[in-house]
Amino acid sequence: MSLNPKRTVAELKELRALTGNENGAQRVAWTDTWLKARDWFAAKVKELPIEHHYDAAGNNWVTLKGTSEKTLLIGGHLDSVPNGGWLDGALNVLAGLEVLRRIAAEFDDRPPVTVRLVDWADEEGARFGRSLLGSSAFAGTHSIEADRLRTDRDGMQLEDALRRCGVDITRFPEARKEQKNAKAYLELHIEQGPVLERMGLPLGVVLGTKGVERHIVTFHGQEAHSGSTPMNARRDALAAAAKLALEIRNIAKKHEDAVCTMGSVKTFPGIVTAVVGRCEVTLDQRDLNRNVLAGMYQEAQEASKQFASEEHCTVEWSRLWNIEPIAFHPHLLDLCEQAIREISGTSHRMPSGPLHDAAEVSRAGIPTVMMFVQSLKGISHNKIEDTKEEHLEMSVAALDRLASKTMTWIQQQP
Amino acid sequence: MSLNPKRTVAELKELRALTGNENGAQRVAWTDTWLKARDWFAAKVKELPIEHHYDAAGNNWVTLKGTSEKTLLIGGHLDSVPNGGWLDGALNVLAGLEVLRRIAAEFDDRPPVTVRLVDWADEEGARFGRSLLGSSAFAGTHSIEADRLRTDRDGMQLEDALRRCGVDITRFPEARKEQKNAKAYLELHIEQGPVLERMGLPLGVVLGTKGVERHIVTFHGQEAHSGSTPMNARRDALAAAAKLALEIRNIAKKHEDAVCTMGSVKTFPGIVTAVVGRCEVTLDQRDLNRNVLAGMYQEAQEASKQFASEEHCTVEWSRLWNIEPIAFHPHLLDLCEQAIREISGTSHRMPSGPLHDAAEVSRAGIPTVMMFVQSLKGISHNKIEDTKEEHLEMSVAALDRLASKTMTWIQQQP
Repeated sequence: MSLNPKRTVAELKELRALTGNENGAQRVAWTDTWLKARDWFAAKVKELPIEHHYDAAGNNWVTLKGTSEKTLLIGGHLDSVPNGGWLDGALNVLAGLEVLRRIAAEFDDRPPVTVRLVDWADEEGARFGRSLLGSSAFAGTHSIEADRLRTDRDGMQLEDALRRCGVDITRFPEARKEQKNAKAYLELHIEQGPVLERMGLPLGVVLGTKGVERHIVTFHGQEAHSGSTPMNARRDALAAAAKLALEIRNIAKKHEDAVCTMGSVKTFPGIVTAVVGRCEVTLDQRDLNRNVLAGMYQEAQEASKQFASEEHCTVEWSRLWNIEPIAFHPHLLDLCEQAIREISGTSHRMPSGPLHDAAEVSRAGIPTVMMFVQSLKGISHNKIEDTKEEHLEMSVAALDRLASKTMTWIQQQP
Repeated sequence: MSLNPKRTVAELKELRALTGNENGAQRVAWTDTWLKARDWFAAKVKELPIEHHYDAAGNNWVTLKGTSEKTLLIGGHLDSVPNGGWLDGALNVLAGLEVLRRIAAEFDDRPPVTVRLVDWADEEGARFGRSLLGSSAFAGTHSIEADRLRTDRDGMQLEDALRRCGVDITRFPEARKEQKNAKAYLELHIEQGPVLERMGLPLGVVLGTKGVERHIVTFHGQEAHSGSTPMNARRDALAAAAKLALEIRNIAKKHEDAVCTMGSVKTFPGIVTAVVGRCEVTLDQRDLNRNVLAGMYQEAQEASKQFASEEHCTVEWSRLWNIEPIAFHPHLLDLCEQAIREISGTSHRMPSGPLHDAAEVSRAGIPTVMMFVQSLKGISHNKIEDTKEEHLEMSVAALDRLASKTMTWIQQQP
């Protein structure tokens, strides 16, 4: 049986029909629809000569044992955001499944190295606001205490939602056992951005995931009546925030590939008849270079203080989250580039702005690389998320090439 | 019995104790606390030789009959915003009550002209978003169909809330009967702004109420992933809105006394990891000159289109509400100025940015004027709203002088 990328596209459509609706994919982790997707996947892998189990964090492991215990990991995630796209995460898993089928067939169910496909639990964090949940348990970077009491919008606790799916958060540390013998990790993903489409390229090599500084910035001014307060007597917190919204773009544009985003603005009291007394904004800054990231963070802080002062306001910063930049493995980058060139002729190296489970695997010290396939219009986390079918098929073929090259590389290791 | 301004201050404190809490005044129209304030007021006026009734719109009329049917109106409102101040609206009513007491005493219960005190229903519009409700019914500028189906945050309809207070919205037009024989209308109010305090003056003459243009401006860009979308590939609706937030200040500053306010910004999806795809802002523009107001509105529209274009967004405008500027009566302005000079030595003429019931009365063709008393720090609609007691007392005395002068003026009319 040879690789059949068209089957991957057909299976993606099958999954979409089963777990999506008119608003898009609904495979939110720890929901019935997500469990339905996993059951569907479990039925698919039953045809293969594999061992299948869920680890202590709910990650879904499919293992094709090789003559060596040295192991190649291929990963993705079946969970989606609410009203999500048909490809984000699911392409990775189903392309990995197709590669596993090819390897099993080629080596008569006994490849030279062990190959494992993992469907990570709760990559998106859509319900409880904690992304990379399963892969961080695998990597040992997870804090049970920081997460167990998170609640969804209905007030259900993360801990309870997991228990309902048979997962006990106190046992999360046991998921680290799955690291055993892992020598490399590969992940294919849609780009979720416009870079490859603008370059006219189907596939790209991902250099690593950008570091992220994520903050809430709150400007405090003075609520005042919009009719009775002269312009020169105002302490308008929105004005200071508006200046920052524009300045972060200048800060980002000094650096190639850096991004700064103000995604949320909240105004208080937030009524048409009052000058804004308090303005809370979010700031998300990313770059692959840690010095660039630190510099951008400092520049934004200084700018915010200047704008607060100009508007007779004060400003405070509160860190939501941060993560360091993670660079993927140099040799795997080369293998990924070779695989892409064999399939599509031209490759491009680029950082990933979004985080992926691959970042957590890399933090665990396992050589890692990701491959991007072009997204149409750069849109993801949306029902209109799409990729040309010919590109999807090419991505399956390129992942397959990369898997073969990586297996050879693993075999060569002592 | 002579005028006793200290009693007004004492009664304001009594009302505060009865209808406020640690968060401020809670006399929101059509609530039990508001009804309690009105009952308290009804008990106060019982001591006077007056006729007392509620009109078809729930306005609260206290009439001291004179030898002539020609009538002087003095007005205010007992309702407050939630967590409001102790003076906004209530000062007007209680100062008017003190003036009524003085007139009744001076003329042995039979003054030369009829004097009526009105406590307007629902000046603030805090619960249903429709301010000047009672006074607009009085003026005949009210639309039943536009308002009856408004709902509060709990989903209760305005029509039903009014019925609970014994008011039938279909009978609102009958409130116009109260206009009969009205020859002048006087309203004292706290300034709710910082102008008099900055000038060191206790009292000011209000030239009129500024016209208002109130709109929702919506910028449409493209929601995109904050990590994967390069800065130069974004259509950031917030960036266009931020430019407008800053530009409206330049527009306002071209004109003395003009104001432009962006009081609310809403971002969609409004999450830390997404470029803002849609940004809804409110714009409130005010000036006493209708040409200035129209010019500012046009400038803001043009600026918004330019910013939308620069950010590869689109923009749409939706009018929330507007009202033309209303100039008060020239002769009453002079009488008001005389009254203030007699009490405090110096006066100042200024427009009112906030709307007041006086604007509706003026629209009904009744000669109208308002007097402002200094607000501390220009703060209102807040529990820290305050005015020096000596200034409150001066304002009662000045309103009393103005009432006397206006009665004389009314008597002189054919």
